[in-house]
Amino acid sequence: MRTVDIIGRKRDGHELTPEEIAYFVQGVTDGTIPDYQASAFLMAVCVRGMTTAETVALTRAMLASGATLGAPRDSSGSGGYLIDKHSTGGVGDKTSLILAPLGAAMGMRVPMLAGRALGHTGGTLDKLECIPGFRTDLSEHEALAQLRDVRAFITGTTAEIAPADRKLYALRDVTATVESIPLITASILSKKLAENVQGLVLDVKAGSGAFMKDTESARMLARSLVDTARAMGVTTVALITDMDQPLGRTVGNALETKECITAMRGKMAPDLEELTITLAAWMLNINDTLAEDRTLTRFNEFARKAYWHEVMEYFEKGDALKAFIQMVDAQGGDVEAVMNPSRIPVAANVEAVAAPATGYIKRVRAAEIGAAARMIGAGRLKADDRIDHAAGVILNRKVGDKVEAGEPVALMHHNAHPAAAEAMELIRSAIEVSERTPVKRPIIYDVIL
Amino acid sequence: MRTVDIIGRKRDGHELTPEEIAYFVQGVTDGTIPDYQASAFLMAVCVRGMTTAETVALTRAMLASGATLGAPRDSSGSGGYLIDKHSTGGVGDKTSLILAPLGAAMGMRVPMLAGRALGHTGGTLDKLECIPGFRTDLSEHEALAQLRDVRAFITGTTAEIAPADRKLYALRDVTATVESIPLITASILSKKLAENVQGLVLDVKAGSGAFMKDTESARMLARSLVDTARAMGVTTVALITDMDQPLGRTVGNALETKECITAMRGKMAPDLEELTITLAAWMLNINDTLAEDRTLTRFNEFARKAYWHEVMEYFEKGDALKAFIQMVDAQGGDVEAVMNPSRIPVAANVEAVAAPATGYIKRVRAAEIGAAARMIGAGRLKADDRIDHAAGVILNRKVGDKVEAGEPVALMHHNAHPAAAEAMELIRSAIEVSERTPVKRPIIYDVIL
Repeated sequence: MRTVDIIGRKRDGHELTPEEIAYFVQGVTDGTIPDYQASAFLMAVCVRGMTTAETVALTRAMLASGATLGAPRDSSGSGGYLIDKHSTGGVGDKTSLILAPLGAAMGMRVPMLAGRALGHTGGTLDKLECIPGFRTDLSEHEALAQLRDVRAFITGTTAEIAPADRKLYALRDVTATVESIPLITASILSKKLAENVQGLVLDVKAGSGAFMKDTESARMLARSLVDTARAMGVTTVALITDMDQPLGRTVGNALETKECITAMRGKMAPDLEELTITLAAWMLNINDTLAEDRTLTRFNEFARKAYWHEVMEYFEKGDALKAFIQMVDAQGGDVEAVMNPSRIPVAANVEAVAAPATGYIKRVRAAEIGAAARMIGAGRLKADDRIDHAAGVILNRKVGDKVEAGEPVALMHHNAHPAAAEAMELIRSAIEVSERTPVKRPIIYDVIL
Repeated sequence: MRTVDIIGRKRDGHELTPEEIAYFVQGVTDGTIPDYQASAFLMAVCVRGMTTAETVALTRAMLASGATLGAPRDSSGSGGYLIDKHSTGGVGDKTSLILAPLGAAMGMRVPMLAGRALGHTGGTLDKLECIPGFRTDLSEHEALAQLRDVRAFITGTTAEIAPADRKLYALRDVTATVESIPLITASILSKKLAENVQGLVLDVKAGSGAFMKDTESARMLARSLVDTARAMGVTTVALITDMDQPLGRTVGNALETKECITAMRGKMAPDLEELTITLAAWMLNINDTLAEDRTLTRFNEFARKAYWHEVMEYFEKGDALKAFIQMVDAQGGDVEAVMNPSRIPVAANVEAVAAPATGYIKRVRAAEIGAAARMIGAGRLKADDRIDHAAGVILNRKVGDKVEAGEPVALMHHNAHPAAAEAMELIRSAIEVSERTPVKRPIIYDVIL
């Protein structure tokens, strides 16, 4: 097999064999295929696409390029099915912090490996690190012990997981080959399936604050993710969800962590509540599907209400918060900070954005709010940028809410950041007020099975 | 301007601006754009294509990446228009050796810079180097002096000519991005236009022994070459010519050189004669077009006969051979070897391929004959492979010729090469005999203006 022939076949739009794809991924991983051949291949895939069979082969090869988590898949006596949730990311997206412990409380095991991507705000790991002492660098041994004892962990992906993805991602970023459904699919799933999960709930976000700007492209990615994960033996669903306005009331690491702690006490912004509970309901549905050894199907309105009720009880009885505290404790975090969130970093400066008029909030543009948060230190542009955990934005009002002219609709938290004025301007421009009640968008657009 | 944005725009099929293309070529040349970005760009061009405006910009930028020949373009008192011929290459393709001196004899100046490509046999430079002492490394000063005194030279492209092409070509070869009409166009023309020519006759070959396997793709390349060269101010024609059987009677460096010397004495195989004279007629037509400052047009049957007659006279009067001797002499070659070709290398072994049956030659597959010649040392697979000048194949019979069973239809010349038996088998398999007279293919398929 010659690399140049494989590239040439993809250039001409042919379907590659699993052997050809494995040869390519192996060569990228061990360095025998140089970057310039890898990038030509990536561009050919970007323009020509891949079939589901090819995407499966690519995912499988990237997964096989590294280690997988040794948690036993069988549920009998092992403490629950291995089920995870993954989101393609958005502004104020914080459901992982709630769903990992909630999953544990609901009787499944949630082995959540998270990356530290660039973006508007830090990722899940940065949010958890706002809790003093919280460790995100568990060894495999520690992670497996915690999965057994506490049923959930959230820790960083290690260098041993999917090294092919790390190499390819670095190359894609500088060769304009990020925007490719099969490449995104293989990148996400090669890391998620390294968790050895049996079930997977995918939150594919669409809107100005998401990677996929419209529901159509989000739907295509969701279709590819579901088909590929299912072909690899994982019971999978993808929800297409709104990312046109930020999720919940906060954007920024410490602010979001505190919002999650409040949420686990049962108090949530309506959009965060609807999304979190729907995702949790799907985790339960997958759990039941695995237990009954059947095919995953949509649930009807009756089942929806039953799942909703069941999930709400875990909040109301305090089980979700209890599981979170157990997880924080197991990962070396300060449990007191969860009980008393004043121990979580707070910014020195708070500035308010006043409503420009009386009326209804028409839009809160996620992209701009995210960009403003990043400007004042909440996120990274480069991998080695330092994050200010306390920096961020609180949204007192969201789309559809009534406002009086002059009332504070948003608060910006920062530590005397030099870009504060510019960021304030951006937040101001992101919020639109209209005289009439706007048409409310749903939070869940579609379910892809 | 960011490289990744330029790559992304081409990935999405947009037309790039001349500034974007110049930025890319400049970056490749000075090394600020790494190979992995260059190869992603090349693959995007390969799949998405380029408009004529983009191809012109690419050619212009690649030409501008290096030096151009300082010969004055104006013909008044400078000894004739600067006109060259270029072929996309094929098996037994040897017309350059004849057309450069013929052009000089016809009153134009032919500044022929040639490369040393990989292939079935060596290139024009390897053929000329069969003449003892012949130098193919003229300095620009020497080349210009010779152009003034002898009106023709054939020498190697220097490192100063189109360095961007050298870098990009090396990358294309290993990233499956060779087969792209705009990239081939820019590669050829960036080197040819560095000769500062005013007229250009392109011989675009189609068939099993050519890069373009069918006339349709050859026609597309010809169209692109003509449109681009014309947009850059060069009066250009392209002929689509046959490369299904080897051209003339010989394949191999020394054998071809001797065939050319015989040709310049007026004795040519019919296909070599028709092609050489047609190409020369177009050089004359371009010369007249430049002199009369008009647009190049097809010539009618009357003009065709007049040109044919004129060209034949240069052979019959011995002017072509005289110009060749002057060129050889000026480039340090042994003039005696031209008069007495026994001084040109001869192989130790000659083996004959016997006709398998009585009938007519139906096919002589150029690809196989070329591959056989390369196997016994006539060509290169890698840039540093050594060439055996004497190795090659003589075709006693060509398509349409009558043969008796057992008569020698081809002779293989080699120096006790270990691959000789395998090469003989390949030559044998390349020659087909049928009972009936085959339909003869034309040598000239089309003329693209």
